[in-house]
Amino acid sequence: MTSWVDGASGSAYDVDNLPYAVFSADDDRPRVGVRIGDQVLDVTPVAAGEMLDVHEAFARDSLNPLMALGPTVWRSVRTWLTGLLTDEHERDVVEPHLRPLDDVTLHLPFTVADYVDFYCSIQHATNVGRIFRPDGEALLPNWRHLPVGYHGRAGTVVVSGTPIRRPSGQGRPPVPEPVEGSTGSTTGAGRPTFGPTRRLDIETELGFVVGAPTQLGESVPTSGFADHVFGVLPLNDWSARDIQAWEYVPLGPFLGKSFATSVSAWVTPLAALEAARVPLPGQDPEPLDYLQVAEPAGYDIAFEVLLNGEVVSRPPFSALYWSPAQMLAHLTINGASLRTGDLFASGTISGDERDQRGSFLELSWGGQEPFGEGRTFLVDGDEVTLRATAPGALGGRIALGEVTGVITPA
Amino acid sequence: MTSWVDGASGSAYDVDNLPYAVFSADDDRPRVGVRIGDQVLDVTPVAAGEMLDVHEAFARDSLNPLMALGPTVWRSVRTWLTGLLTDEHERDVVEPHLRPLDDVTLHLPFTVADYVDFYCSIQHATNVGRIFRPDGEALLPNWRHLPVGYHGRAGTVVVSGTPIRRPSGQGRPPVPEPVEGSTGSTTGAGRPTFGPTRRLDIETELGFVVGAPTQLGESVPTSGFADHVFGVLPLNDWSARDIQAWEYVPLGPFLGKSFATSVSAWVTPLAALEAARVPLPGQDPEPLDYLQVAEPAGYDIAFEVLLNGEVVSRPPFSALYWSPAQMLAHLTINGASLRTGDLFASGTISGDERDQRGSFLELSWGGQEPFGEGRTFLVDGDEVTLRATAPGALGGRIALGEVTGVITPA
Repeated sequence: MTSWVDGASGSAYDVDNLPYAVFSADDDRPRVGVRIGDQVLDVTPVAAGEMLDVHEAFARDSLNPLMALGPTVWRSVRTWLTGLLTDEHERDVVEPHLRPLDDVTLHLPFTVADYVDFYCSIQHATNVGRIFRPDGEALLPNWRHLPVGYHGRAGTVVVSGTPIRRPSGQGRPPVPEPVEGSTGSTTGAGRPTFGPTRRLDIETELGFVVGAPTQLGESVPTSGFADHVFGVLPLNDWSARDIQAWEYVPLGPFLGKSFATSVSAWVTPLAALEAARVPLPGQDPEPLDYLQVAEPAGYDIAFEVLLNGEVVSRPPFSALYWSPAQMLAHLTINGASLRTGDLFASGTISGDERDQRGSFLELSWGGQEPFGEGRTFLVDGDEVTLRATAPGALGGRIALGEVTGVITPA
Repeated sequence: MTSWVDGASGSAYDVDNLPYAVFSADDDRPRVGVRIGDQVLDVTPVAAGEMLDVHEAFARDSLNPLMALGPTVWRSVRTWLTGLLTDEHERDVVEPHLRPLDDVTLHLPFTVADYVDFYCSIQHATNVGRIFRPDGEALLPNWRHLPVGYHGRAGTVVVSGTPIRRPSGQGRPPVPEPVEGSTGSTTGAGRPTFGPTRRLDIETELGFVVGAPTQLGESVPTSGFADHVFGVLPLNDWSARDIQAWEYVPLGPFLGKSFATSVSAWVTPLAALEAARVPLPGQDPEPLDYLQVAEPAGYDIAFEVLLNGEVVSRPPFSALYWSPAQMLAHLTINGASLRTGDLFASGTISGDERDQRGSFLELSWGGQEPFGEGRTFLVDGDEVTLRATAPGALGGRIALGEVTGVITPA
């Protein structure tokens, strides 16, 4: 059951994928589109004839109204789309509404409600611990008991292709702080540095988009993951390591992250990842009851990190210690409610090997061990692209939307 | 120039105050209201005759459309309202649209975009440092160089009066963690606790509401504060100290805070606080250039914390080390954009005296020194109310909206 659309059959964008975006052409305002092969299906006019009850949700400039309709509607829309794109009899109706990708503009696909970033790769957390606390335990005591996370800035989540301006900020003072009892605190000794970040970095992540909301006080069990999560998208959590290192105690990252987070324009439905499900690598100690999972809770998603067109790393999502269902269960165990458009991300994905690390911080071991052609952190003009693929239901691999950004000067 | 409205003249809600809310009566949908004395002016029908260009913004169920119109409109609306409520000739037109406070329901006054919480009281930060790190420096090295802050959960900001359900979560294991090389990590030794928080606390804060947005890449200088901030409101950042203490390294507070943050239903315009402006207590060392302020940047706002109707603390906002203009300048120095509805808060306000501390953590010194009638943290059924007043332009004191919440069982 593959698609009749030219070039779609057997490609990474056959009917086992069908990611959603918000697009516009020069003739009309932004609306929902679905990718098939190298084309975008303009869903709204087709739905006007056949799927009238959700037609209005397709006509909007964000996926939120569609996502808010909940999992039963998501399933029936996917079944309907699959029928349209595999049944040759639909060709006459559908073909006029296919547009080449090159002819459309893609927008931020949803309005981000709250953005939470986790820290779920044990390889990443261990690497960071070793780089920043070489004399201490690499993992902090809570790490194996809960998926550590924090809230990021929702308002600076930008769509793939948005230029990333190098941020400025404070860095750690170059000389030791004056100690208590000494004079000189106003002399300028120990003043922080200020200027454009010198340690601009990426974080290779997968983001999860919440469709169906909850009420305040309600928790989502790990088994309820697919009832609330609409889809996934690659995400680059740009990070200024020098700003972050100075500011982050005791309340966590703030300006070192809040200048921009890039996401793919395409949201892949969770339903497209059924064939990608794999068991977790293993959790020791056994997590508390609310974090237990009864089924294969991991995903075999293979990432590639490209720096100026060259692959510099291949982080495997399957190596992640904590599963997305556990992230969502933890996020809501205190009764925090979910809204349509909530975004949560895995944290940097890193594997066991050096060339599987998901950040330049790790690839260059804190800047001490240049990688590739002598690189440490990002320089102006660099372009970073994250790509990802996963097993699809038709036996090949589906592609998740890529996320790319070019660094512009401060 | 006081109001002709019965009971308003000389009260804490005369025309030098005029806070905004979103209200509904049983006959109609939520819309913008302005408080005068003990009444709410239903602005929409009055504006239909006289202020047609912003009439639509008053008819909405959130202050966001009004706030998005920017400071010039905010000023002209305030001038118009002052005229209506002081000129006896307007009485016939206005009086039919005044409703007693007791006859209306108040709603969350704005849609929260991003919520940032700062940590700007040196007394609070010092107290917390001494309680949690009795053997270390009370203040961390960055504290006097920048207003430390982090992002909180926007989706769980609730209006005053919303019941606060005691959250559950993980706490620090009661016995030491197994050390590396030992066996037993799966035996249950060192497992975290799980259950309803035993250390439910308040944080007495003032929130600032952004009206006029910025573009990505733009920074707001300290002198631009009033061009972007529409108004202020008291805020209670409910905190579960046991959950927070276990989870917060290294990425900061998450579930210990994200279950609920209560705000007043009333937003006091920044313009009403002109007479409350006072110099900061003093900053040493001198902050970096982007954090310098050229004018009285503090506010003389007196808070009261009531536990079940009894005043247990009187935190002075004037004691705050960092000013709100500095918070906003810092928040945006990396180019992070602002959206209409962004909320940022001061962090817990504590003064020098014990009875000026803004959290139960400090009032009870980590639970070791019960205060009042033998209290440490909150018990089910407790009601906490924050009240605040400030000098008004008419020589008396204006009241900020109060924020209250009752603790319900887990």
